[in-house]
Amino acid sequence: MAGLTEDELIARFFAPLAGAAGLGLTDDAAELQAQGALALTKDMLVAGVHFFADDPPDAIARKALRVNLSDLAAKGAAPLGFLLGLALPAADADWLERFAQGLGADAAEYAFPLLGGDTVATPGPLTISVTALGASPPAGMIRRGGVCESDALFLSGTVGDAALGLRMRLGAAQDRGWIDALGAADAGFLAERYLLPRPRLALRDALRVHARAAMDVSDGLAGDLAKMLRLDGLSAEIETRDLPLSAAAAAALAREPALIETILSGGDDYEILCVCAPGRAEAFAGAAARAGVAVKRIGAARRGEGAPRFIGEDGAPVALKRASFGHF
Amino acid sequence: MAGLTEDELIARFFAPLAGAAGLGLTDDAAELQAQGALALTKDMLVAGVHFFADDPPDAIARKALRVNLSDLAAKGAAPLGFLLGLALPAADADWLERFAQGLGADAAEYAFPLLGGDTVATPGPLTISVTALGASPPAGMIRRGGVCESDALFLSGTVGDAALGLRMRLGAAQDRGWIDALGAADAGFLAERYLLPRPRLALRDALRVHARAAMDVSDGLAGDLAKMLRLDGLSAEIETRDLPLSAAAAAALAREPALIETILSGGDDYEILCVCAPGRAEAFAGAAARAGVAVKRIGAARRGEGAPRFIGEDGAPVALKRASFGHF
Repeated sequence: MAGLTEDELIARFFAPLAGAAGLGLTDDAAELQAQGALALTKDMLVAGVHFFADDPPDAIARKALRVNLSDLAAKGAAPLGFLLGLALPAADADWLERFAQGLGADAAEYAFPLLGGDTVATPGPLTISVTALGASPPAGMIRRGGVCESDALFLSGTVGDAALGLRMRLGAAQDRGWIDALGAADAGFLAERYLLPRPRLALRDALRVHARAAMDVSDGLAGDLAKMLRLDGLSAEIETRDLPLSAAAAAALAREPALIETILSGGDDYEILCVCAPGRAEAFAGAAARAGVAVKRIGAARRGEGAPRFIGEDGAPVALKRASFGHF
Repeated sequence: MAGLTEDELIARFFAPLAGAAGLGLTDDAAELQAQGALALTKDMLVAGVHFFADDPPDAIARKALRVNLSDLAAKGAAPLGFLLGLALPAADADWLERFAQGLGADAAEYAFPLLGGDTVATPGPLTISVTALGASPPAGMIRRGGVCESDALFLSGTVGDAALGLRMRLGAAQDRGWIDALGAADAGFLAERYLLPRPRLALRDALRVHARAAMDVSDGLAGDLAKMLRLDGLSAEIETRDLPLSAAAAAALAREPALIETILSGGDDYEILCVCAPGRAEAFAGAAARAGVAVKRIGAARRGEGAPRFIGEDGAPVALKRASFGHF
């Protein structure tokens, strides 16, 4: 990067991705014409914490966008655009080119233009901060609270894949058994799920019409479900056999039953936990299916103060050392 | 921080600072009711690059907000709120308490509520990312471009103080002469100017009514002025004697004339460079004075392709090794 100023870097790699509101990234600020309520969210990602520094640069860029898009999706919000903060260690033009390529591809795929941002040097790890703006549903953002007793709990997609993919990549000695037993396709699937979340934006209409509450599951289902239900003084008892598992996760779990803890609390799912009134459950499932997103009813909200319990196939509660990905 | 989860940290230190749109920081996103055009800006600050890791935590928080508020001020935008991204190394509760106290003080002073954000752990230096939202002026954001030949160039406040304050703090051997010659009050003033920018939000009405263009001077006057005028194929010739200098900067410069280069290109001024049609210059200066902000006419835009030249008291152009703070 020697010799490349911040302005040159922006002009070369990022200005071509800017939406109209980004003013070519040549001003102090972007200007966005907003109508109605905006959903605003921000996720930071640090190399070595949220991704591997040697992950493909385009995948790093896409993950940074997608974890934010996942938040918007959970709120029923439509993506409007994002601001990008980049703290770069010694990075080279080739790396930036590939990073910008991934960013541009997802910006196009999700109609999510770059509006502005800041690029700085850091003596530390690559750090990415994305602020996402979305248009709230006309009736307001779908909130995390407001759940009622007996409401149906739904989860999109499958749970635990990314956490298993991460453990696979870390490859600890005690994990060699189940890792080596995975077929190549299953291993590739789990690795991909860690690398590249799939924001469930296609659920937007189903959520807007049917959801009482929803949240993005990013820090582990157990912890995130607890966080949600606690807001309304509720809890739940979930049968682990009702959880949506991918074939790959099911294979790993069959080989190593202790992986249930990773599946429940490992994080990085970027699926949507959605709550519907019981009378809406069937309609929500139908609308989700029509939108092409698999959703699974995993249980119901119950009165109770404690964290939700997960009941294993043996009828005993699964012991969780920690309910969710701990940042500190 | 051991034992403090992200949620506990947010609930304890940041939720009390959240504005209504922040929903108590208990949801995936904030929801802001927006009317008209929004000005959006984002600045990242890295310990060891943009501030010293051992700066007072409340000053670090305030600087992170103020550099963003300075961008809004330059655009004539009124602060609406901000999102905060924090990548924390091993930080302690006492540090966070003081950081949150500074953040809260400025959020109150500038009516600039916390809307949301993200807090993560980092193995690297403390990294702060602030995304600021402002309400654009009814006629639209004041842009950086659109300058015409002969337009008057104004600068708010004084230039070079923060860059001198930084050199003072770095205290290189060859700087001991002028540093040791500074009086305590001057030294304190320069140090403070580096530590705590003063966003010129009071200029808003004067800018809205009279400015043709404006920008925040953050990377050094020479580079930022060049960046602005280049957009319209313009340049300028500025007499250094016309620059607004603080008494402290003037004293340092009198002792060490070579400091003119630091004053012109050192960065961290967070003053506003404003351009007015010649016939508006007097009215702008009057409006600024009534708003309590000193502004100085430093020259005029002239046809030309090269970077603006700064002419010293000896009538010769000042040689600048680099026009602005280089990030890479």
